[in-house]
Amino acid sequence: MGPPELARHLLVVFGATGDLMQRKLLPALHSVAPVGDAPFVVVGVARQPLDEPGFRAQCVASLTSDGSVPTGDAAAWAARHLHYVSVGAGAPEDYQRLSGELERIEREEALPGNRVLYLALPAAAFPPTIEGLGSAGLHRSKGWTRLVVEKPFGRDLASARALNALVHQFFAETQVYRIDHYLGKETVQNLLVFRFANMLFESAWNRDRVDCVEITVAEDLGVEHRAGYYETAGALRDMVQNHLMQLLTLTAMAVPAQYEADQIRNEKVKVLRSLEAIRPEEAVFGQYGPGTVGAAAVPGYREEPGVNPTSTTETYVALRLKINNFRWQGVPFFLRTGKRLPTKTTYIHVHFRSPPVWFFPATSPGEITANSLRIMVQPDEGFELAIEVKKPGHEIALQTQRMHFQYSEVFGPLADAYQTLILDVMRGDQTLFVRADEVEESWRLIAPLLEHPPALRPYPAGAWGPTESTALVTPGGHHWTEG
Amino acid sequence: MGPPELARHLLVVFGATGDLMQRKLLPALHSVAPVGDAPFVVVGVARQPLDEPGFRAQCVASLTSDGSVPTGDAAAWAARHLHYVSVGAGAPEDYQRLSGELERIEREEALPGNRVLYLALPAAAFPPTIEGLGSAGLHRSKGWTRLVVEKPFGRDLASARALNALVHQFFAETQVYRIDHYLGKETVQNLLVFRFANMLFESAWNRDRVDCVEITVAEDLGVEHRAGYYETAGALRDMVQNHLMQLLTLTAMAVPAQYEADQIRNEKVKVLRSLEAIRPEEAVFGQYGPGTVGAAAVPGYREEPGVNPTSTTETYVALRLKINNFRWQGVPFFLRTGKRLPTKTTYIHVHFRSPPVWFFPATSPGEITANSLRIMVQPDEGFELAIEVKKPGHEIALQTQRMHFQYSEVFGPLADAYQTLILDVMRGDQTLFVRADEVEESWRLIAPLLEHPPALRPYPAGAWGPTESTALVTPGGHHWTEG
Repeated sequence: MGPPELARHLLVVFGATGDLMQRKLLPALHSVAPVGDAPFVVVGVARQPLDEPGFRAQCVASLTSDGSVPTGDAAAWAARHLHYVSVGAGAPEDYQRLSGELERIEREEALPGNRVLYLALPAAAFPPTIEGLGSAGLHRSKGWTRLVVEKPFGRDLASARALNALVHQFFAETQVYRIDHYLGKETVQNLLVFRFANMLFESAWNRDRVDCVEITVAEDLGVEHRAGYYETAGALRDMVQNHLMQLLTLTAMAVPAQYEADQIRNEKVKVLRSLEAIRPEEAVFGQYGPGTVGAAAVPGYREEPGVNPTSTTETYVALRLKINNFRWQGVPFFLRTGKRLPTKTTYIHVHFRSPPVWFFPATSPGEITANSLRIMVQPDEGFELAIEVKKPGHEIALQTQRMHFQYSEVFGPLADAYQTLILDVMRGDQTLFVRADEVEESWRLIAPLLEHPPALRPYPAGAWGPTESTALVTPGGHHWTEG
Repeated sequence: MGPPELARHLLVVFGATGDLMQRKLLPALHSVAPVGDAPFVVVGVARQPLDEPGFRAQCVASLTSDGSVPTGDAAAWAARHLHYVSVGAGAPEDYQRLSGELERIEREEALPGNRVLYLALPAAAFPPTIEGLGSAGLHRSKGWTRLVVEKPFGRDLASARALNALVHQFFAETQVYRIDHYLGKETVQNLLVFRFANMLFESAWNRDRVDCVEITVAEDLGVEHRAGYYETAGALRDMVQNHLMQLLTLTAMAVPAQYEADQIRNEKVKVLRSLEAIRPEEAVFGQYGPGTVGAAAVPGYREEPGVNPTSTTETYVALRLKINNFRWQGVPFFLRTGKRLPTKTTYIHVHFRSPPVWFFPATSPGEITANSLRIMVQPDEGFELAIEVKKPGHEIALQTQRMHFQYSEVFGPLADAYQTLILDVMRGDQTLFVRADEVEESWRLIAPLLEHPPALRPYPAGAWGPTESTALVTPGGHHWTEG
């Protein structure tokens, strides 16, 4: 049995033979109820004319690929919990047939009619699938119906609005779960808890005490096998509009009246609405050339398989953002993300102000380092607080030391983000999902850069982006964290 | 050679055959200049009719007792740097003779006439020695003259004032170095650096953000071989008037205009002057009875050798103090010290305020722990910051975690307090010494308790003091740190 509070339901995954289902959702579902009864019955849906044994065999292969689940157990689990329905070309009659199959399975499994419809599909398939669902009346069921939509949600403000409009034609917003898997990470969830349970930090979390905030999402990998998608997206769409904006809003938002999905999302939207329009000189776009990451020589972006040799797709974005509200006015928020940077790391680095007066003798003002709190999101989730201490001895000389807290040292390995998120869908908790207005506001914010992208600056693979990114932060004496 | 900036001088130690010289000062002096020339020549002074070889032999035995200094090296060092003069009964002619001897040694050693006069004596010997020095004109020399006075400096406000008056009859305050060896501890010196170099903490270091401050100086030992002194002193005189008041003033003081001895001490005195007179219900006195410390059964105070079997000497003091200034009004400062407590530890524990509103679901308000910063003075000098983090999982449940910084992990073993302090005397830096008005203000503060001591409460050895100490802190929802 899974968690007892879960209502029994049908979980219908569109794109069930795809990468996301096979690599992420299946292990997450299996971990919810690895043995015995589960609160759900999964119906895999895809175009392929597979039969159920064929689908189950594929799922068993996926589940057992890392060796953690024995094949016998996986086969028993698949036989008990997995069904398959092909929708072929996705004609209206295909969805009608799907509807009949879902009702049949619900009857056979004695389910009360609750349904999760999970669109684990490429973005281009979202509109026809939603229309297909609507045409067959699948947006309603005897119990509750929840729609899960993967990213990317639109590719600009107009398409995001159009997609929201289509979704809302059939589903109420309270039924919709837009995935940003960063929100499933424990540290990201902990952000609100940390901020509002720790008054030492929250009382300093404002323009009086904070000098600047840096949000870095760095990848050491290149475009890998995703060139087809990435060439049409770029770093701004792929990372900034979603993950970085989510980290930004959670870092900057005010305390909601209650810990409740819509109240939290109201506060996040308020941050997005307070963001000043980005001016061209506040953005740096880059694209990696050949270089060295770790010890390995790697090709440049334009040399990657599937990439146009004259591509102008940005693989790096740095932004200087201003939040024009009472809490943050005057505090720059520096965001950066890129591929082929020196290391894979994600963090929020809050730099507090320096002492207003240098009161110590014998040491020059340049030798003081302001306090900072680095919230590590990956790979080692935790906190790092930089403080100044006195070096032992007669002279008053400072040294920066770091106090650490690492989640894994205390709590062991954390749950995968998808496990967290799929459970929240099953529970009906929308807190960690992106609301329609959040999506639109973040597209609105980056719209000027989509329409008039800044000049593309080259950087060698293995560098921290183009040199122009430094000039973005130096006014005000700021600097990017090294590493 | 020692540190090059030290002016060559004569260091005259009164009480040179005593415990303090033999256990603390000698190793400190040796560490300043273990080989080759030293910036100082030591003249041991005591009543005993020792000759120089006899004195040097005693010092060599002390220096080599822990095995760190080879006997040959210690003997060479002693022969080169140590002299001895007996002052017999301390008659005026004895000091005249001493004066002649010092001049002779200065001539022979070609010293410029700078002198440190270090009173490593029992308190009763301070006045006659100072008078003897004055009568022989030893308060002046051809170079500078500095007077070092060990604790206890007086045994109440009247005697401290009288001693200050006597000192000032011969010495200017700028010549006087009153020792409180706690001020020589690296963490205590670091307190000011830490506070004024770390804005995250300094900006929260006030009544708006701090709930209460606890200062604990706990000893696991009993009275040991010091019953004779302790019976006339008690914990209030032995620990509170000096060490705890020093920790209190350094914790609470405002930032001085410059890092300079008198400006710092001005600010410390301001704290003492802002302290409200202690009312009887704000003090708890205790005396340990038989009990268990660690695994060992130990006798009660009245059973200790040399202690009056009906003694009413307090071995434990707890105080609730109020600082009536803009920064601290309304923030209780809890001080406690005692013998035969469960462990040897000294710390300043700053408890920040709790979040004003409990905004999380599902967890009761009682489950939140306010942030706190524990500044460890001994045995493991460093910092411990308690923060709240989210336990992994769907439920919003908090867990208190501690971030650490330990001096010894980064810097290795720290210098002994006496080494720090004797070097400061040689340098002429009064920052870490107690000024006349500081001494008097702290005696003034505890005067009501000396005149009308609160009822003496028994506690078993190995407990955290008498149960009455709990009631001292519970108003306002505070509690003593356990451990």
